[in-house]
Amino acid sequence: MNAVQRDLLQAPAFAFDGWSSAHLGTIERALSRWVVQDAPAGLGEAMRYAVLDGGKRLRPLLVMAASEAVGGTAVAALRAACAVELIHAYSLVHDDLPCMDNDVLRRGKATAHVKFGEARALLAGDALQALAFELLTPANEEVSDATQARLCRLLARAAGQQGMAGGQAIDLASIGRNLGEDQLRQMHRLKTGALLQGSVLMGAACGQLSAQAEEALSAYGAAIGLAFQVVDDVLDVTADSGTLGKTPGKDAAHGKPTYVSLLGLERSQQYAQELLLQARSALAASGLADTQALLALADMVVNRAH
Amino acid sequence: MNAVQRDLLQAPAFAFDGWSSAHLGTIERALSRWVVQDAPAGLGEAMRYAVLDGGKRLRPLLVMAASEAVGGTAVAALRAACAVELIHAYSLVHDDLPCMDNDVLRRGKATAHVKFGEARALLAGDALQALAFELLTPANEEVSDATQARLCRLLARAAGQQGMAGGQAIDLASIGRNLGEDQLRQMHRLKTGALLQGSVLMGAACGQLSAQAEEALSAYGAAIGLAFQVVDDVLDVTADSGTLGKTPGKDAAHGKPTYVSLLGLERSQQYAQELLLQARSALAASGLADTQALLALADMVVNRAH
Repeated sequence: MNAVQRDLLQAPAFAFDGWSSAHLGTIERALSRWVVQDAPAGLGEAMRYAVLDGGKRLRPLLVMAASEAVGGTAVAALRAACAVELIHAYSLVHDDLPCMDNDVLRRGKATAHVKFGEARALLAGDALQALAFELLTPANEEVSDATQARLCRLLARAAGQQGMAGGQAIDLASIGRNLGEDQLRQMHRLKTGALLQGSVLMGAACGQLSAQAEEALSAYGAAIGLAFQVVDDVLDVTADSGTLGKTPGKDAAHGKPTYVSLLGLERSQQYAQELLLQARSALAASGLADTQALLALADMVVNRAH
Repeated sequence: MNAVQRDLLQAPAFAFDGWSSAHLGTIERALSRWVVQDAPAGLGEAMRYAVLDGGKRLRPLLVMAASEAVGGTAVAALRAACAVELIHAYSLVHDDLPCMDNDVLRRGKATAHVKFGEARALLAGDALQALAFELLTPANEEVSDATQARLCRLLARAAGQQGMAGGQAIDLASIGRNLGEDQLRQMHRLKTGALLQGSVLMGAACGQLSAQAEEALSAYGAAIGLAFQVVDDVLDVTADSGTLGKTPGKDAAHGKPTYVSLLGLERSQQYAQELLLQARSALAASGLADTQALLALADMVVNRAH
């Protein structure tokens, strides 16, 4: 046995719980510091309500994990992580509005418009989107101009018409219609997948990486982005609202097409596992050494209970 | 008479009409090219409806004029000009929604939610905000990383909680309340002024300028930002809907405080002229040579009929 083999055998298994709780603490503190209470006329209160004390922080963790995999700058990664979460939070606030899903329960709490009224919820969402780009562009020199520009570019594309907002428009137009699997996949690739994949790419943009690694991380992000939605659809029929923290069964009730309605429950569960394998293969092909956190996050996405 | 004096006497008066119609043509073509029809599920159609064929394009013209005053890069200025207009357009779409001002007429047309439904109008606004930041961050190298980062920074701050969105929150909270002049000014400084001032600063960020010039342009932007709102309040009581292109008298009808309700009509008109003088003085103190377009735009803001 040579020294390298001995080191490999002695290397401790990656401790995801420790990794994730340390990073979650950092993320929560940063969000609480950056989403300030004192925005005018109660706007800050509504923004904080929409962002803090809830959520799995999957997107920020993906940013951190991808950044670490490429040896990225921690201060840039933390800003990117929080910016992505603000976009996610704003999308939930707007998605819950009466003119959209008209939902009253989110992360186990009253939705923002129930708590603050529709107008202030709308504005809080708008302000959260702007704040995301504010976080990415600090005026001091702690993040290089090149990284700031790259992060804004990736986030704007992931959030916009060819990303999350576009996917929501397809979702809206699909109510009560029969979509084929290709159309359903395209909808989710934009609606949920773009921001999850964007999180991975933004983390990667905090460091340097080869074209091979970038392609692999992009494929990883696409696979877990789709898997996330497949699992969401599965949980929407198998979980109760206490576990889920939101109203279950609402997609079916709204006549929205889901993977379960298209493929059935069992085939959907299989599909999620296939996507997990795709994500793992992509990481194996990345040439990156430090991908344990990304691996663990892919597992979490597919095997979560809520 | 020396050569310089002779040149000055022979210099033609600045032809604002020609300047502005040339730039308006460029801006309209760029907006039409960048706000694409083929965003998913009718989203592009709603976005184009909200942006094209209407509006004075004051903010884009301010960007162009400020950029020219500092010898800025034309390609960066055009992107900045369109980005600011997208933020303005999205704010109008959201502002017109039933949960906000519930307005049915805008720029002489049905408002976006009347035409496309509330949900698609909401999403179109969200996507326009993202697209603004997309325009500022082209992946090719036509705009430097430093300029991209600076433009995103300025736009995010002008649009967000300490800018436009914050001002709208104050506006919302002020309905039916008596505001003092200081509070009214603070509301408008954020709600309308931040994006107008931001337009000037973004134009300036497309070139190089001294600290003195930056301060002067900032003061110019603040003065016309406030003047714009004072004139808006005046026109809200003096103009008819045909001239205005939107429903007049609605602020008073909604119980919103205005400069006219606070200062009276005549004093409000005087105040607008005082702000015009402030804007002119700031330009005179800027040390910049080429400020005719900025001067003409200040005149336009104060002396417009709609």
